[in-house]
Amino acid sequence: MAFPRPKPTTMETLAMERANPPFNIRKMSIAMHGSEKALILKEKFMAEIARHPAFKLSDIHDLSKDELRERTMEKFASMVYFVTNESLETFQLRMQLIGIADPSFWTRFGVAYGLFLGALRSGATPNQLSYWTDRGVLGLNGVIGCFAMTELAHGSNVAGLETTATFDRGSDEFVIHTPHLGATKWWIGGAASTATHAAVFAQMIADGKRHGVKTFVTQLRDTKTFTLMPGVTIGDIGKKMGRDGIDNGYIQFTYVRVPRAHMLMKHTQVSRDGVVTEPPLAQLTYGALLGGRTSMVTDSSNSAKKALTVAVRYAAVRRQFATGKNELETQLLDYPIHQRRLMPLVAQAIAIGFTGLRLQVMYEDMTQALDTMEPSDPNLNDILDKLKETHATSAGLKAFCTWACLDTIDKCRQSCGGHGYSAYSNFPLMYADFAVQCTWEGDNTILSLQAGRSLVGAWGAAVKGKKLAPGVAYLNDSSLISAKSDSSLSLSDIQRAWNCVASNVIKKAAEEYVRLLKSGKSKDEAMEKCSQSRFIAAKIHTIGYIFRLFKEAVEEMKDDEESRTLKTVAKLYGLWQIEEQQGYFLKYGYLDAQQMDKVQESVDALCQEVRGVAIPLIDSFALSDHIINSPLGRWDGSVYESYFAQVQAANPLPKEHPYFTRLIKPLLERQDEDMEDPGSAMGLDDELKEIEEERKGE
Amino acid sequence: MAFPRPKPTTMETLAMERANPPFNIRKMSIAMHGSEKALILKEKFMAEIARHPAFKLSDIHDLSKDELRERTMEKFASMVYFVTNESLETFQLRMQLIGIADPSFWTRFGVAYGLFLGALRSGATPNQLSYWTDRGVLGLNGVIGCFAMTELAHGSNVAGLETTATFDRGSDEFVIHTPHLGATKWWIGGAASTATHAAVFAQMIADGKRHGVKTFVTQLRDTKTFTLMPGVTIGDIGKKMGRDGIDNGYIQFTYVRVPRAHMLMKHTQVSRDGVVTEPPLAQLTYGALLGGRTSMVTDSSNSAKKALTVAVRYAAVRRQFATGKNELETQLLDYPIHQRRLMPLVAQAIAIGFTGLRLQVMYEDMTQALDTMEPSDPNLNDILDKLKETHATSAGLKAFCTWACLDTIDKCRQSCGGHGYSAYSNFPLMYADFAVQCTWEGDNTILSLQAGRSLVGAWGAAVKGKKLAPGVAYLNDSSLISAKSDSSLSLSDIQRAWNCVASNVIKKAAEEYVRLLKSGKSKDEAMEKCSQSRFIAAKIHTIGYIFRLFKEAVEEMKDDEESRTLKTVAKLYGLWQIEEQQGYFLKYGYLDAQQMDKVQESVDALCQEVRGVAIPLIDSFALSDHIINSPLGRWDGSVYESYFAQVQAANPLPKEHPYFTRLIKPLLERQDEDMEDPGSAMGLDDELKEIEEERKGE
Repeated sequence: MAFPRPKPTTMETLAMERANPPFNIRKMSIAMHGSEKALILKEKFMAEIARHPAFKLSDIHDLSKDELRERTMEKFASMVYFVTNESLETFQLRMQLIGIADPSFWTRFGVAYGLFLGALRSGATPNQLSYWTDRGVLGLNGVIGCFAMTELAHGSNVAGLETTATFDRGSDEFVIHTPHLGATKWWIGGAASTATHAAVFAQMIADGKRHGVKTFVTQLRDTKTFTLMPGVTIGDIGKKMGRDGIDNGYIQFTYVRVPRAHMLMKHTQVSRDGVVTEPPLAQLTYGALLGGRTSMVTDSSNSAKKALTVAVRYAAVRRQFATGKNELETQLLDYPIHQRRLMPLVAQAIAIGFTGLRLQVMYEDMTQALDTMEPSDPNLNDILDKLKETHATSAGLKAFCTWACLDTIDKCRQSCGGHGYSAYSNFPLMYADFAVQCTWEGDNTILSLQAGRSLVGAWGAAVKGKKLAPGVAYLNDSSLISAKSDSSLSLSDIQRAWNCVASNVIKKAAEEYVRLLKSGKSKDEAMEKCSQSRFIAAKIHTIGYIFRLFKEAVEEMKDDEESRTLKTVAKLYGLWQIEEQQGYFLKYGYLDAQQMDKVQESVDALCQEVRGVAIPLIDSFALSDHIINSPLGRWDGSVYESYFAQVQAANPLPKEHPYFTRLIKPLLERQDEDMEDPGSAMGLDDELKEIEEERKGE
Repeated sequence: MAFPRPKPTTMETLAMERANPPFNIRKMSIAMHGSEKALILKEKFMAEIARHPAFKLSDIHDLSKDELRERTMEKFASMVYFVTNESLETFQLRMQLIGIADPSFWTRFGVAYGLFLGALRSGATPNQLSYWTDRGVLGLNGVIGCFAMTELAHGSNVAGLETTATFDRGSDEFVIHTPHLGATKWWIGGAASTATHAAVFAQMIADGKRHGVKTFVTQLRDTKTFTLMPGVTIGDIGKKMGRDGIDNGYIQFTYVRVPRAHMLMKHTQVSRDGVVTEPPLAQLTYGALLGGRTSMVTDSSNSAKKALTVAVRYAAVRRQFATGKNELETQLLDYPIHQRRLMPLVAQAIAIGFTGLRLQVMYEDMTQALDTMEPSDPNLNDILDKLKETHATSAGLKAFCTWACLDTIDKCRQSCGGHGYSAYSNFPLMYADFAVQCTWEGDNTILSLQAGRSLVGAWGAAVKGKKLAPGVAYLNDSSLISAKSDSSLSLSDIQRAWNCVASNVIKKAAEEYVRLLKSGKSKDEAMEKCSQSRFIAAKIHTIGYIFRLFKEAVEEMKDDEESRTLKTVAKLYGLWQIEEQQGYFLKYGYLDAQQMDKVQESVDALCQEVRGVAIPLIDSFALSDHIINSPLGRWDGSVYESYFAQVQAANPLPKEHPYFTRLIKPLLERQDEDMEDPGSAMGLDDELKEIEEERKGE
């Protein structure tokens, strides 16, 4: 007597969700990827890695750390063809895609290709660069680099690093030394077992004088035998929360000598006689940081989209509880609360995606402008202002976008119920891999405070009447402080809402800072004391900034079905975030209590509206089954069949029970009669009884 | 030339933090543990497991899933002595402690001891229970049970389970059957390799009629050989996010026969002739669920305290950046923003801890009252009302306390910077292990909605003038709706604030529900439609409830240094949460914008105040170094030394490089000259060029 199976099947359900999409999925996908070219290349990369044995992903949850690391180097080897033969632009898109599929490998490759080579590019003189190029550094042959900055006791405070590089004039060498345990280089990706050289950050000392932290290219291992160089001690840092495919290590130097020429001397030079020439201006590093942060914003969007692809498809096919007279159980996605759980996150991931695209363009424009500009150019100051502002905003973006993505991954996991806890759902690995993004390249809280500091400065400049750079130009409009909603909740009303509230929270932070200064605090103390207000300022400014960039992107599009859908998505993002931060909108009077109720109603309605196009919208994220690597999010909806097949394939039962005879059999067959009463043996009983008596006596 | 080491050492720093604590740590610890007896027993359990080889924790991050599972059964075997010989109360405290140290093992043991035995205790007739007791079920010998409820396609909806148990009158047996893939028993802890029997939940069918889900004790494996019983198919579910020490499996039954007497018949009976007798009243399961939720509230507090012990001690000894003219870098804990990151979480963990203690007492009182009460007792209805209300509130508590703890663990991880990402910090495992608490025993969102539904009901009853149970009695005070702050921000002002705002959000949900009903929606539809408001109602009510229980506990204490400190902690908790939920306090006018600024200032000041006693406060959580299992949180402050030693011990370097010759050497020595230009080989170039041309033409 078979129990009647519910109809339709999960596959049929997903097909129905795809029938008659109200917009063209391809066109939507192109808009989200910035260009058709970018989309086509992504599809090509996805096909390539889906077919490459080293990029197999379905078995990744059951590999040991050692197996993961070995596979990382297989992937590494498979990349050198492209790194040598592809254009930089194409290769960067390739790496962006690989970053979504396999963050562990992306990190190992990025350490060699991004950080180590980046250190050379930005720090080496032309002669030095050509020396290292001759040794094969650009093609990743001859030299495989790592980046030895962080130490056990110093992370954020780079200027406080304690490794020393002392100039020895006699031998024309620097002596690299780790003076104590806390100065051990720590977390160094690639150091444990795969790097030949390191860019070592150390306090440079010449003639007994300290000149601050410089970079020294230091050989770690013999390239023929891979044995450690004399004086170099290396250990494996071992298991991490995620990204176990990268071999992080520690390094201790015991009076290791490197030629003077191995200090990167584009900025500071040390002559044969030990004369130190400092650069005329502090090094301009805004550009480099900006590039990294831009890519982290994009990666936050992509990683969130990956998690959402799984959660939304699963919510479409998973049915639970029949409502009313329905025989068929209800799709999770049809529950208002489930729409509330996922649709705002979809909107946010899309908003951050468009922000990343526009940031990329701004970054490229600025880099080009700086590269082609003469120091005498009359626009130089404007461009530098803009760069500085974007740099500060990007600090906030890095923080709040990576937080948003991490939060999205875990909410997606929870939305899939128990199955989200299975490794094969891929959420656990996504979370574990992504979590480090909130810490590296600047702890998110500290970056937020930096952004807040800059906003306090911008407020001060605005008060003095200075025209501000575009990202904070709203601070020049003093009428915003007391603005009120026109009750339309239109995109421009929402934009004004964010500008109003951001102006107010920035003003609060700035006034707090000034008040603290007036009360006699030093600048540093005052900044620390107003941290909480600075943090809030950065948060609100950043959300408003993301909303603005998304809105601009959508408004620049032709008026078609795709842009109309995206306007709905933008509205959901803006209003949902108003709801999330409602305290500030009420506090500064942009919205009153009744309007806030309307906001909640609108968010409910928008969630329902976006739910109607949820599957086509997710499809336009264009992530292959191989990339999302989760049976719960299968494109064809065959959720249970794929999940069961993967669980079976990954967990063959052993021929013999590994510990039945040793552990379980004696348990099952034991007789407890001979055991002594534990009371007297434990010795605690009398003491506990006394306590009991005392208690009763009280 | 050695770099001068900063003074004092990390160990000296922690010692200084402990000098002259403003309260007695032992007394504080007793208050937090509910009694001196509970604390002494905990210390005894901690000492025992620290010395027991099976409970070794320092190597746990580097064990494989199979090794973890085998060790689980070693621990299992070590428990049977205590389960047989200790009083229930003592054994429960033991398990509570072990739950903090080792959630994986706790789960496996809980499945056998809590769920399987619990199913027997609550569902078996006295005769059935004595039958199973004779077979060794109480002492966990002869029978090791698991709990086969969840299926692949059904979790939350237990009534929708699809496994069938069809009565065969001819043989006086039930036939247990899995009709299709979705009905496969899934996630069954202990099934994969360690259980002999299962309590199987299945749709009972007699004479072609379905009678709903009942429980059938079904043998899975032969107890002598451990081979599977005929018709039983079992597989391993494999890797999970955490708790890999428990062997979750799936089970498929193919017409498996069990004697009729193996259906648990305390409530529904099936006679020899197949006559089904339903119980006169629906089963009263409030009590059982309440016990589980109470223990999850306590576990949330304990797990949060474990993470905070690490983060706060680390923040005390970690120094980064020198401020002003100091040569010594500043302790993280002295930064206002770091105080903001951790001190509210400390307050929250303590608040939830006191809530758990009081909940436990309420639960025990209720159980006793129910056990000793006659059906004719005039107080029966009052007690049932109270039970029902506590049951609903406990649903919200389970949800918001487990969420709060999960959030605390990740915030603690982030507050430790990069080192928090190391497996040896123990945060990754704490997070991964704890994460499932938000899903099992009811998905948190769904439980919140249940709590919200009950609050909507309570509002309706209050409007009709009914006197409500204590937990929601504030709804009887209609003046709270329009209450205003007396600006004192005292504990009672804070309590009124929560009561006011909770009343308002519950009123909003209830009015929305009534409006939807009036517009023609069915009750079910109306409830679903007002989900978001129900969710908010549950959230605000729950926070206010936690605050109230904490406040009551503290106000009942003698007026001494300990209670004064705890009052400060309570104030921080209440005001910080007001800040977090400030929108509602502004919206409903309990506080205005200026008062809200005062709240922010007070929270800043309270964070600083609690920071002053942070280390003694953390010490009174009384968690041993073995339990916290994190070098970053060492009691003696030897953070770097312990961390380095553990990393070294866990990661001995291999004698030979496992893949240098195969993978790295060819990379280093390769010559790329022979590689062809990739363009023509890729075939995409022409297409991409066309796109580029088109783009330019636009």
